[in-house]
Amino acid sequence: VGEAVRRSEVVVVTGGLGPTPDDRTREGIALALGLPLAVRGDLLEELRRKYLAYGHTTMPEVNVVQVTLPEGAEAVPNPLGTAPGFRLEPGNAVLFAVPGVPREMRQMLRESIVPWLAAHRPGEAVRSRVLKTMGIGESEMVSRHAVLFAALSERGVDVGFYPRLPGVHLRLTVRGEAGAAAARLAAAEAEVRLALAAHIYGVDEETLPGIVGRELVARGWRVAVAESCTGGALCAALVSAPGASRYVDRGIVAYADRAKIELLGVPAALLETHGAVSEPTARAMAQGLRSRSGVDVAVAVTGIAGPEGGSPGKPVGLVWSAVAAPDGIRAWRSVHPGTRDMIIQRSVMTDLNRLRRVLLQEE
Amino acid sequence: VGEAVRRSEVVVVTGGLGPTPDDRTREGIALALGLPLAVRGDLLEELRRKYLAYGHTTMPEVNVVQVTLPEGAEAVPNPLGTAPGFRLEPGNAVLFAVPGVPREMRQMLRESIVPWLAAHRPGEAVRSRVLKTMGIGESEMVSRHAVLFAALSERGVDVGFYPRLPGVHLRLTVRGEAGAAAARLAAAEAEVRLALAAHIYGVDEETLPGIVGRELVARGWRVAVAESCTGGALCAALVSAPGASRYVDRGIVAYADRAKIELLGVPAALLETHGAVSEPTARAMAQGLRSRSGVDVAVAVTGIAGPEGGSPGKPVGLVWSAVAAPDGIRAWRSVHPGTRDMIIQRSVMTDLNRLRRVLLQEE
Repeated sequence: VGEAVRRSEVVVVTGGLGPTPDDRTREGIALALGLPLAVRGDLLEELRRKYLAYGHTTMPEVNVVQVTLPEGAEAVPNPLGTAPGFRLEPGNAVLFAVPGVPREMRQMLRESIVPWLAAHRPGEAVRSRVLKTMGIGESEMVSRHAVLFAALSERGVDVGFYPRLPGVHLRLTVRGEAGAAAARLAAAEAEVRLALAAHIYGVDEETLPGIVGRELVARGWRVAVAESCTGGALCAALVSAPGASRYVDRGIVAYADRAKIELLGVPAALLETHGAVSEPTARAMAQGLRSRSGVDVAVAVTGIAGPEGGSPGKPVGLVWSAVAAPDGIRAWRSVHPGTRDMIIQRSVMTDLNRLRRVLLQEE
Repeated sequence: VGEAVRRSEVVVVTGGLGPTPDDRTREGIALALGLPLAVRGDLLEELRRKYLAYGHTTMPEVNVVQVTLPEGAEAVPNPLGTAPGFRLEPGNAVLFAVPGVPREMRQMLRESIVPWLAAHRPGEAVRSRVLKTMGIGESEMVSRHAVLFAALSERGVDVGFYPRLPGVHLRLTVRGEAGAAAARLAAAEAEVRLALAAHIYGVDEETLPGIVGRELVARGWRVAVAESCTGGALCAALVSAPGASRYVDRGIVAYADRAKIELLGVPAALLETHGAVSEPTARAMAQGLRSRSGVDVAVAVTGIAGPEGGSPGKPVGLVWSAVAAPDGIRAWRSVHPGTRDMIIQRSVMTDLNRLRRVLLQEE
């Protein structure tokens, strides 16, 4: 810490702010900067209130250490946890200490650290935009559009490629005077959109469940989900968006064949002839769920997540999906690579995107 | 990189091994260490094979850069992705470069880096054990057992506390000669187990879904899940364990009240009187599912994940759960703090643990 604040303008320390004996960041920073530690009465009251709000009758005394801060520290609020962070300004540097719990740390970065730096250490403007794509790998993307990406780079537009499961996020970043940077970013985005067209499903903080939910609400439609290999993860993804109760009707995890017959009306003979992982079964699941539940649109997924259960004709990773909408049923075959959890996650995202495209009449 | 290999014995570089123009780790390391880069024919063949196995007809030429390594580099296999990692031994140091994708990086750390270091840079032995707990916060844990943790620390047993959603993982670490370290670790574990008793549900790589699955298989039982606020996430957690098809029968995400009535046989009058989030509804969901599906044990969860839908009597975070087993039905009330996704995740883990305790006859 002592070295970092000498060589850097901004130092962020994460972790070690808990109440347990292995949490030593407060002491370490105080020692490095030669500052005494003191209990902060104002923060202690707030911490006690949090404990009561969480349903505890008292706050354990060990938690007092969480509000024992180096002299001169300003508290940084932690809306998702107990330990406050803090800010110090040793010499010409600014140092932030925040908890290591990723969720808490990210929230504090967004809500406190970045706004503080923007207000107190303004530099050149940095404007960026994340374009989220699916259905094209990063290799194919740079191969097909090498000229575009080289041109953007020459014009000072940084392009970062971040592989996700299963798509690629592109981050366009532009630096300079604020107005000019925003204009150059908008121009770059328009060019990338032309090139990647239908592969782009969202931007920045948008998520597939949120986008699908928005489109369902716009149509006043309700959705139901029938899953096998994904085990509930597709429905859980839809429900992860706040407000999902407005459009999610039900989900059926028909893991056993018997459940597919009883709950979705898949004919036993069809399962016998084609198997559980097949186009006819996926179609029958979507169709059966849509008619039984009375929703506008039903999604069905059946596949082999592995590690066992594969065969030469039906390998691990094979997934059949179907969407039953008012204008008919569509079905798709995928073979997803990776481990069991990767196959499940790829299925969920791929099928949410298919639902999105059906809603937007792109499929 | 140049500075790191001078001051450290082991350097691990993550990220920047992809095929896109922003992936510059190979070039950067070659430059820092003054090594030429060359295409590796053997790795190129392997990369082409991977592309064909993933269902592509050819490998894009941009991927050649992924097997263009600094002279003298040994490849580190990447079983979950395309980019191989590599190892160099500049001076007295060893440097590993691995992809930044967390899943790939972790796998390569476990399968290649750690075994290589153990074989080629043996130091003193480090033995550690993770004890996974639930139902006790870290503050309460250290308050109640301060004497024990202080004694362990004095005997050279490092204790790390890692808050998870919703439990706390304890990591006990001991260093020294291998046999003695293992014995001291076992003694420390025994003492912690005495102190924390029933709060400990698993160790090391064990997961709640895996443990629950093992107990279900041991009894030859099948399970079904009825969920509302968790939206399929509880069933998806059960299914995440390999081999889940042996014991997961079905899951019902009865998000709308109509679905609770139609699919689980919850009486409409009961929903009218007590509301969807209530003990009678949770019991009726578990009971209804168990009798309709014919499974041995059924789990039901109904709650308010927020951010909307709370009221003074039924706040956001309120969750009622029930387990219907051959010997009867048990129900529990929880109020989980946090955001929508935190409430969902806490519900899933808490109820998996309740199912575990019912299976082990601890509840």
